[in-house]
Amino acid sequence: MRVFNFSAGPAMMPQEVLEQAQAELLDWQNTGMSVAEVSHRSKEFVACAAHTEELLRQIMGIGPDFKVLFIQGGAFGQFADVPLNLSKPGDVVDFVLTGQWGTKAFKEAKKFGVQATVVADEKSSNYTTTPAQGSIRPTPGSAYLHYTPNETIGGVEFGYVPETGDVPLVADLSSTILSRPIDVSKFGVIYAGTQKNMGPAGMAVVIVRDDLLDRARPDTPSIWNYRLMAENNSMLNTPPTFSIYLLGKILEWVDARGGLEGMEERNRTKAETLYSFVDSSGFYSNPVAHDSRSWMNVPFLMANSELNKQFVAEAAEAGLTNLAGHRSVGGMRASIYNAMPQAGVDALIDFMKEFERVHA
Amino acid sequence: MRVFNFSAGPAMMPQEVLEQAQAELLDWQNTGMSVAEVSHRSKEFVACAAHTEELLRQIMGIGPDFKVLFIQGGAFGQFADVPLNLSKPGDVVDFVLTGQWGTKAFKEAKKFGVQATVVADEKSSNYTTTPAQGSIRPTPGSAYLHYTPNETIGGVEFGYVPETGDVPLVADLSSTILSRPIDVSKFGVIYAGTQKNMGPAGMAVVIVRDDLLDRARPDTPSIWNYRLMAENNSMLNTPPTFSIYLLGKILEWVDARGGLEGMEERNRTKAETLYSFVDSSGFYSNPVAHDSRSWMNVPFLMANSELNKQFVAEAAEAGLTNLAGHRSVGGMRASIYNAMPQAGVDALIDFMKEFERVHA
Repeated sequence: MRVFNFSAGPAMMPQEVLEQAQAELLDWQNTGMSVAEVSHRSKEFVACAAHTEELLRQIMGIGPDFKVLFIQGGAFGQFADVPLNLSKPGDVVDFVLTGQWGTKAFKEAKKFGVQATVVADEKSSNYTTTPAQGSIRPTPGSAYLHYTPNETIGGVEFGYVPETGDVPLVADLSSTILSRPIDVSKFGVIYAGTQKNMGPAGMAVVIVRDDLLDRARPDTPSIWNYRLMAENNSMLNTPPTFSIYLLGKILEWVDARGGLEGMEERNRTKAETLYSFVDSSGFYSNPVAHDSRSWMNVPFLMANSELNKQFVAEAAEAGLTNLAGHRSVGGMRASIYNAMPQAGVDALIDFMKEFERVHA
Repeated sequence: MRVFNFSAGPAMMPQEVLEQAQAELLDWQNTGMSVAEVSHRSKEFVACAAHTEELLRQIMGIGPDFKVLFIQGGAFGQFADVPLNLSKPGDVVDFVLTGQWGTKAFKEAKKFGVQATVVADEKSSNYTTTPAQGSIRPTPGSAYLHYTPNETIGGVEFGYVPETGDVPLVADLSSTILSRPIDVSKFGVIYAGTQKNMGPAGMAVVIVRDDLLDRARPDTPSIWNYRLMAENNSMLNTPPTFSIYLLGKILEWVDARGGLEGMEERNRTKAETLYSFVDSSGFYSNPVAHDSRSWMNVPFLMANSELNKQFVAEAAEAGLTNLAGHRSVGGMRASIYNAMPQAGVDALIDFMKEFERVHA
């Protein structure tokens, strides 16, 4: 009955996690209540949230000089929240643009009276590239440098972490968090909406270095103030309890599959299989530079774009859903996050071969 | 296995709703996906969100001159979002204080450069009263007047809607929305966190009159900008899809039980049963003025407060959970939202009688 869901987000979750959630939806931990009904101040839920944080710290290797926060509003909320927490009006803040999400973050920051400065912009390649390693130079004195390690729409991913010296590095890791190991110590702030590799939509995970906690503007909304949220273990207000619970389950799933090394192996194999097929095909193509191809989001085109609708519809009938490209770019896109098994990628390739055989 | 859960929020949900959610958690509407996995842009989810909004409009009698928004951040987010959307720096904004939540909203508003003005404060009664009807006078020219129709912690509820003339009335309806009919046309903005009568924590429903949509400050975060969210059907960013879906299920449950008139009858009976018992008892007491007693949150005290812990623990063993009063006030509190059946209140009263028999 279950399909292979290639949605860019909200996205496929591990079936094992959904089955656990289903089994205990009316009675969690023998409380006689759903986890969505228990008080966030109850000892059971406080332990659940602490377990989720601890697992995330362990799996990502987050050091003791970082806070982990669960904040409502998703990544788009953080587009505003980062300048509110890290900059003063008039400050220079730097942006690296490699696609639509970074550009949205840049535009949102400009609402907050900062000198938003583009220090690298891959527009000339139509956002199919990332800047050459070593070429990104932050503005001296910049409050932070923001970039988007994986652009979900274009399918463009950095193969390296930029070096920014004393300027804190801020990353929107929404669509690549937990997909492979990352050196958290290189970052000032990592944030990620949960609806790709971390569960349902409705929350952002924010990982923030302690020395950046005291920069918030006085008019930062309390529930978005990193310091206040850190002091209250993300429970200054009622947290999205069901999301925190599901994230914990997903982290257990990741942990049981070898952690981020296990995910890296799984995801590299999936991505290589799919890109190899696309590249070997004369029928499909991917426009992204080889060193900047996303492991998570794989766009592909057909020379005859009039076939796109038919491709997407027939794939859905075959149990391969949500393969339409983003409405702004067209074509197709297969999002293959952690929860997508190799079998899903193999089934997609089989379908693509058959579609090519009929239409080539 | 299920208990009667008297938690103030997150709170009990209708068992029928949880059972439906459980049944379709891995395969929603024959999509082969969980509702938490489908794209918010899919035709299925767009229809789900529209259905939820339409049901809310119908059940609450929301006129066409109001927008209905689903916004992340809960009610505490709205404590900041209302001043950002409705006031300029320097504006007078009025507050009526009848307990802790209204006071928090007042303190949060002060972050945003407004002249936050308390026009009524029931502190002298230790927040066990509401202002006499007709006594609330907004400041002329005030950007809005904010009040809290039901104070969850103190169990204090307005028996009327204040008349504020040309000054838009803003209400935090978190803990009483959907509990009885309300004349929406009297309000400028109604907002409510979902975790009491509308599902899991993680979202606020905001009902805003059209003429108030154009006041937002330029530095209002986009996902909290009422106008932008209205123009995008609450999907400027990825919405909390699972919360919107569950709210729809809960609204169907309300609708099938006579809508708000049905809830009023149900809730009045529950509240009258419990208050009558408390008042007739020499062992338990409720400090709130009779005309200001909440139908949703019923605090009660014992003369010997050393028995509180034992009461709460033994009640929990009897399947009556989360009866401890708020940590700031002590005593006990029974939150009896829509989902609490009469049988739960009756079971609580039976337990209270037996506890009194043993300890009186």
